[in-house]
Amino acid sequence: NVYEYVRAFEQSDVLLPNTWIVVRIDGRGFKKYGFRKPNDDRGIGLMNAAAQGVMRELQDLVIGYGVSDEYSFVFHKDCTLFERRASKLTTTIVSIFTAYYVQLWPACFPETPLSMPLPSFDGRAVMYPSVRNLRDYLSWRQVDCHINNLYNTTFWALIQQGGMDAVKAEEELMGTSAADKNEILFSRFGINYNNKPEVYKKGSVILREVRYIGLSPQLD
Amino acid sequence: NVYEYVRAFEQSDVLLPNTWIVVRIDGRGFKKYGFRKPNDDRGIGLMNAAAQGVMRELQDLVIGYGVSDEYSFVFHKDCTLFERRASKLTTTIVSIFTAYYVQLWPACFPETPLSMPLPSFDGRAVMYPSVRNLRDYLSWRQVDCHINNLYNTTFWALIQQGGMDAVKAEEELMGTSAADKNEILFSRFGINYNNKPEVYKKGSVILREVRYIGLSPQLD
Amino acid sequence: NVYEYVRAFEQSDVLLPNTWIVVRIDGRGFKKYGFRKPNDDRGIGLMNAAAQGVMRELQDLVIGYGVSDEYSFVFHKDCTLFERRASKLTTTIVSIFTAYYVQLWPACFPETPLSMPLPSFDGRAVMYPSVRNLRDYLSWRQVDCHINNLYNTTFWALIQQGGMDAVKAEEELMGTSAADKNEILFSRFGINYNNKPEVYKKGSVILREVRYIGLSPQLD
Amino acid sequence: NVYEYVRAFEQSDVLLPNTWIVVRIDGRGFKKYGFRKPNDDRGIGLMNAAAQGVMRELQDLVIGYGVSDEYSFVFHKDCTLFERRASKLTTTIVSIFTAYYVQLWPACFPETPLSMPLPSFDGRAVMYPSVRNLRDYLSWRQVDCHINNLYNTTFWALIQQGGMDAVKAEEELMGTSAADKNEILFSRFGINYNNKPEVYKKGSVILREVRYIGLSPQLD
Ligand SMILES: Nc1nc2c(ncn2[C@H]2C[C@H](O)[C@@H](COP(=O)(O)OP(=O)(O)OP(=O)(O)O)O2)c(=O)[nH]1
Ligand SMILES: Nc1nc2c(ncn2[C@H]2C[C@H](O)[C@@H](COP(=O)(O)OP(=O)(O)OP(=O)(O)O)O2)c(=O)[nH]1
Ligand SMILES: Nc1nc2c(ncn2[C@H]2C[C@H](O)[C@@H](COP(=O)(O)OP(=O)(O)OP(=O)(O)O)O2)c(=O)[nH]1
Ligand SMILES: Nc1nc2c(ncn2[C@H]2C[C@H](O)[C@@H](COP(=O)(O)OP(=O)(O)OP(=O)(O)O)O2)c(=O)[nH]1
Ligand SMILES: O=P(O)(O)OP(=O)(O)OP(=O)(O)O
Ligand SMILES: O=P(O)(O)OP(=O)(O)OP(=O)(O)O
Ligand SMILES: O=P(O)(O)OP(=O)(O)OP(=O)(O)O
Ligand SMILES: O=P(O)(O)OP(=O)(O)OP(=O)(O)O
Ligand SMILES: [Mg+2]
Ligand SMILES: [Mg+2]
Ligand SMILES: [Mg+2]
Ligand SMILES: [Mg+2]
Ligand SMILES: [Mg+2]
Ligand SMILES: [Mg+2]
Ligand SMILES: [Mg+2]
Ligand SMILES: [Mg+2]
Ligand SMILES: [Mg+2]
Ligand SMILES: [Mg+2]
Ligand SMILES: [Mg+2]
Ligand SMILES: [Mg+2]
Repeated sequence: NVYEYVRAFEQSDVLLPNTWIVVRIDGRGFKKYGFRKPNDDRGIGLMNAAAQGVMRELQDLVIGYGVSDEYSFVFHKDCTLFERRASKLTTTIVSIFTAYYVQLWPACFPETPLSMPLPSFDGRAVMYPSVRNLRDYLSWRQVDCHINNLYNTTFWALIQQGGMDAVKAEEELMGTSAADKNEILFSRFGINYNNKPEVYKKGSVILREVRYIGLSPQLD
Repeated sequence: NVYEYVRAFEQSDVLLPNTWIVVRIDGRGFKKYGFRKPNDDRGIGLMNAAAQGVMRELQDLVIGYGVSDEYSFVFHKDCTLFERRASKLTTTIVSIFTAYYVQLWPACFPETPLSMPLPSFDGRAVMYPSVRNLRDYLSWRQVDCHINNLYNTTFWALIQQGGMDAVKAEEELMGTSAADKNEILFSRFGINYNNKPEVYKKGSVILREVRYIGLSPQLD
Repeated sequence: NVYEYVRAFEQSDVLLPNTWIVVRIDGRGFKKYGFRKPNDDRGIGLMNAAAQGVMRELQDLVIGYGVSDEYSFVFHKDCTLFERRASKLTTTIVSIFTAYYVQLWPACFPETPLSMPLPSFDGRAVMYPSVRNLRDYLSWRQVDCHINNLYNTTFWALIQQGGMDAVKAEEELMGTSAADKNEILFSRFGINYNNKPEVYKKGSVILREVRYIGLSPQLD
Repeated sequence: NVYEYVRAFEQSDVLLPNTWIVVRIDGRGFKKYGFRKPNDDRGIGLMNAAAQGVMRELQDLVIGYGVSDEYSFVFHKDCTLFERRASKLTTTIVSIFTAYYVQLWPACFPETPLSMPLPSFDGRAVMYPSVRNLRDYLSWRQVDCHINNLYNTTFWALIQQGGMDAVKAEEELMGTSAADKNEILFSRFGINYNNKPEVYKKGSVILREVRYIGLSPQLD
């Protein structure tokens, strides 16, 4: 095949060995979906079901962490799946996730069949050289989750229970601290933020369990 | 957010300006699906429907070319979608394609509902600096289509009409030229390969039409 | 050698085929050298001699273009030197250039022996997909040469012949057009910029000549 | 400047944060130089002097390791020199090294003035995520040094003292272990390899010393 020379234009995108690989995917234009506010259990359930599908099909993944319309998947630093080719890793995760998301949608949202444009996700791979960096990555996403959720919970309380419109609620929250928001929730609406479901405040975690049965204890 | 420094670990993957960008996706493990042999009009129809979904949602795409379980999408060399970030381009195409593929599956295969693992695709981006390279890329895929289809057509004729098993059919074809295969088809099975549907022999093409209405003619 | 696994951490940096490769090098901290103003023939001569050394040792180079403390070297788009590995191409050119620059310095500046820190250069590789891009690259550097040289010529005339200090001269030139600068040079100092040596106004070019002797004319 | 768009073709080559960066340079075609065999103190001295120049000019370097015609330079994992741009780091080191090598040549080899082609070096950058990887990298180079030096010492003893030619000496050494070579050196030539200078057996190391004066001891 005289045209096969074009294959040489494919460039290597092999990720550095001995680094933790995080693939983060994020829903494209998910603001437009009519999810319940501030949290939609059906949406969270669907994200988690899709992520479980990914973890099941890709045994090299060790952690999944999800919040809002995003999910982060962690490959172990010793992982050699697809020779660590970035495009293979990202596209495969995005594709499996999307397949489950679309397939399981009707079970989570029986009353709203999907219409075009269908839900889809982008994805990227990031390398983290140390466990500390990896932990900080997960902390970054989780702190983001916490900040957004406290904001959203208060914002939607002001609207849904306080009768404000979005502009007014945003003004009300401008410049407020976390303590202020807790106070607004409690004093005006009798909501104790601490009692809100953990999954809203902290996001969802999927861990691959490794069980050592009958081994001698000296593992490194 | 003290953890935000981890964002700095995301590396740039911006593709070179003024190059044609081809994103080729390919079904993962599609051999295991029970498609009709040598060609399955339902499978081809589904691939094409998904590709149309991609072309509709991403207006920057100018060409789509599909054969077997793969599809190539061409971004114009001047395209600036996602600032030409490779991971965004590949994952978005793979995700949209997968969403349509899963969503439209029941319409194409009403008698075989999807089961896990769901169909999914990998993807990659390749740059081509010249129109000649781009054309050669498409020729490469199309010549591949032709070679595989002639082989498969003959192979399955030997099995389905000739009563051979797969091992025997493979032996029979070993070392045969294109002319030999045409001859086998014609003399043994009365099949004229030239009369086979074009879509089997050449694959599927989607072009974005640009219409110039009422413009003065001096375009460059 | 049990440690050899570390070799796997070397990542591919192969440049895209069929693109023009420009390696531009630039003197590090050259402002501190006491070159004659606005142009120093000895400095220009040394840069050109070093560049000739590079062109002689690397036969794959087709063009060299120099101005000020920088030089651009162009590899043909079909070049396969070092398998087009970026680091090999850049470091080799920088190293050869530096070697000649240091070695030939005494011949060009007999009265000022080199002292530490010695002159050195950085370098980078850039790909250009089309001849048009390549030509525009060279035009970019040459227009830069022209603008800087007109500015410097006028700036130093104001100082050397006009008796201004640097601050005053800079003020005088602020906001002036090219025509204004030509006018200043001519009316105040009797200098006709057009008569200045071409090498100051346009930079230096090295071309590799290809001679076809006794060939039949049908070349493509 | 209408041509400035060509700047956008420069692609990012920023190295991953929090990784040790090793720049290894290697003499181009150094076999052709007539260095004394098996080791040339003048050549080693010149390499080390050039490396010291590099370490002096680039304060971000923490380790230098040299053997034969190569030198490895280590940037601390927190280094931000040139924003960690690979091409800047490699070309700058190669250029400074080359400048010193050429400049100091006459002092080391007074009887053999340099002639063209001048000595030059290539270079590359490699990232190592962990201290363990970095140590293994240095061990890799040092074990290489040891193996090559034992071989070369024995090879040249067979020639210089044993009167063999190169082909014969190579045959003699084929398949021999380290112990065999030690034995050949001792029994035939009365050479105790252990008594050879450390610099031949282990290479040269340059460390940047960090002195803590009057600090409380709890550093991490
Ligand atoms: N999947 C899901 N999405 C939710 C849920 N609650 C809210 N969302 C929506 C509201 C958020 O604004 C949106 C995610 O924000 P992004 O910053 O990702 O924006 P969006 O996806 O619109 O744009 P993008 O394409 O990512 O740039 O997802 C939920 O429970 N599940
Ligand atoms: N979608 C589709 N696939 C077909 C059709 N006919 C056959 N196929 C199957 C049979 C081919 O062997 C297979 C594609 O071959 P590949 O080389 O892509 O292998 P496969 O997908 O099994 O493995 P991979 O994960 O891509 O390495 O697709 C059809 O009409 N439509
Ligand atoms: N080689 C050479 N250099 C000249 C000549 N005339 C002036 N120069 C100096 C003055 C310019 O400001 C300087 C080049 O400017 P750059 O922008 O490259 O700055 P510099 O090298 O100081 O800093 P850098 O390390 O490149 O960021 O070279 C000459 O004739 N030959
Ligand atoms: N600088 C230096 N070089 C030495 C010394 N002794 C021997 N050499 C030479 C002999 C070695 O074969 C040569 C280095 O071998 P390489 O594998 O780097 O080969 P070479 O530089 O010829 O080719 P290359 O351009 O690196 O692929 O350096 C010495 O004391 N100092
Ligand atoms: O998606 P993120 O969180 O990385 O952040 P963004 O602001 O959406 O930016 P981009 O998707 O363009 O990287
Ligand atoms: O998928 P292709 O056609 O590029 O070829 P392959 O043999 O499947 O190889 P890979 O998917 O690993 O690039
Ligand atoms: O050296 P240049 O001309 O590319 O431009 P710069 O402003 O010196 O920038 P850098 O050397 O950091 O790319
Ligand atoms: O120079 P090295 O040691 O990395 O090894 P090589 O065999 O010279 O290979 P190359 O210089 O081409 O990487
Ligand atoms: Mg985003
Ligand atoms: Mg989103
Ligand atoms: Mg989001
Ligand atoms: Mg494949
Ligand atoms: Mg496939
Ligand atoms: Mg295929
Ligand atoms: Mg610069
Ligand atoms: Mg400079
Ligand atoms: Mg300059
Ligand atoms: Mg080498
Ligand atoms: Mg060498
Ligand atoms: Mg060497």
